[in-house]
Amino acid sequence: MIAVAERINGMFSDVKKAIKNRDPAVIHDLAKRQTEAGASYLDLNVGPGIADQPEAMKWLVGATQEASKTPVSVDSQKLDVAKAGLEAASGQPLINSCKGLEVLDEWVALTLEHDASLVCLTIDKRGIPQDIDTRLEIAAAIVGTAIEKGLEPTRLFIDPILFPVNVDQKQPNYLLEVCRQISIISDPPPHIICGLSNLSQGTKERSLINRAYLTMALTAGLDSAVMDVLDKDVMDAAITTEMLLNKQIYSDAFLKAARGR
Amino acid sequence: MIAVAERINGMFSDVKKAIKNRDPAVIHDLAKRQTEAGASYLDLNVGPGIADQPEAMKWLVGATQEASKTPVSVDSQKLDVAKAGLEAASGQPLINSCKGLEVLDEWVALTLEHDASLVCLTIDKRGIPQDIDTRLEIAAAIVGTAIEKGLEPTRLFIDPILFPVNVDQKQPNYLLEVCRQISIISDPPPHIICGLSNLSQGTKERSLINRAYLTMALTAGLDSAVMDVLDKDVMDAAITTEMLLNKQIYSDAFLKAARGR
Repeated sequence: MIAVAERINGMFSDVKKAIKNRDPAVIHDLAKRQTEAGASYLDLNVGPGIADQPEAMKWLVGATQEASKTPVSVDSQKLDVAKAGLEAASGQPLINSCKGLEVLDEWVALTLEHDASLVCLTIDKRGIPQDIDTRLEIAAAIVGTAIEKGLEPTRLFIDPILFPVNVDQKQPNYLLEVCRQISIISDPPPHIICGLSNLSQGTKERSLINRAYLTMALTAGLDSAVMDVLDKDVMDAAITTEMLLNKQIYSDAFLKAARGR
Repeated sequence: MIAVAERINGMFSDVKKAIKNRDPAVIHDLAKRQTEAGASYLDLNVGPGIADQPEAMKWLVGATQEASKTPVSVDSQKLDVAKAGLEAASGQPLINSCKGLEVLDEWVALTLEHDASLVCLTIDKRGIPQDIDTRLEIAAAIVGTAIEKGLEPTRLFIDPILFPVNVDQKQPNYLLEVCRQISIISDPPPHIICGLSNLSQGTKERSLINRAYLTMALTAGLDSAVMDVLDKDVMDAAITTEMLLNKQIYSDAFLKAARGR
């Protein structure tokens, strides 16, 4: 799976302090540890309460790239912040995220300009859908528009928006059906991503809930998540699920083999 | 889910010794511990190398029922052994298992006679199928025959036969598709059961493999497993999966609440 490591985020006080003081030590440490844990991308979010956000994002990308060759995921819904991050990024970064269909055109243009991939939320002018069908309808429109503008589905990550289970307990199950159907929406299909940790916000069994749901969603067609890669149990669950789906070869050392890749 | 607790089995040396010596202490202990862990049925298998198997099964049922009110699962593919167990059993026991379509009639008759439920393996005169379609074809024939003979699908458990992942790595994924389709084979559908621990036979990550697959299979429509209920991690995974499928109410104490039922 494509694991987008969530920890370099200004919502965490250590990262916020590091950004404010332009002190790279914390960022280097998180970049290295998340890379070793198997991150496919390192998500970078400057968080709230930072004065010059584009400048801060640019610094954050630089600091991260000093410590790791793992591609960055520029996490902002502000075009100028994303742009600043992309200009500093090497390789093929991810943009996380475009806030739905209404603003898709300009985000696709930015994505193509920087040889990046794009996460797009299933939102349209009606807002954030709560049901299965509206999510699928918006997802299909996003895929259609992206292809029309020249962005291949393989560079597109649909995020159908996972709510915390303690807010609306029907939603996690709805999302599974959305995953099953998005995975046959086009050929090749777009990637399907979710903010996994969001599911367990405010619950008392976060790791257990995250790993059970990741296993369920991967089985339903999800292939990517913004997640806590430093939680070894969650990563083990993901690797084991992919092995049982016959997407990774079984050996006695399959966990180690998956991490070694 | 319906958890069939696997530990009272003569394949384990402590149980074998207890059966040989007609010493109920080990059986009492396992019956109590598995009941506390959340077993829906206590599977009883006298194992190989026991002289008078019907007599041993009768004793085993009696010893188990001295310690627990949880219904027993009489585990034998020999009709006389199953019969001896059923005659000693209180309540509504499970019969585990009928070896396929060819012998179904006499096992359904035994099931009806004892007000029991029946596990039936997807086997016909061609043997054990390795593919999805033959499993489904046999499952449909089993459900049809059972209904015709007067056994409701709610009393029937289809076991599509799960092989160890290190024997044929395609099989676990095949079984998921079989579960998805059996769960819409009739209305109401039959139960779907698997021998979960069989999947991880000979592997080095047994608990991890068992719990990931149980989560995957429950999401695909499985609702029952012969399993190690004493493995708390596997039981936690099952409870969490059912909560995320919206089959159990979420609360901060959802694990405890599920165990308390």
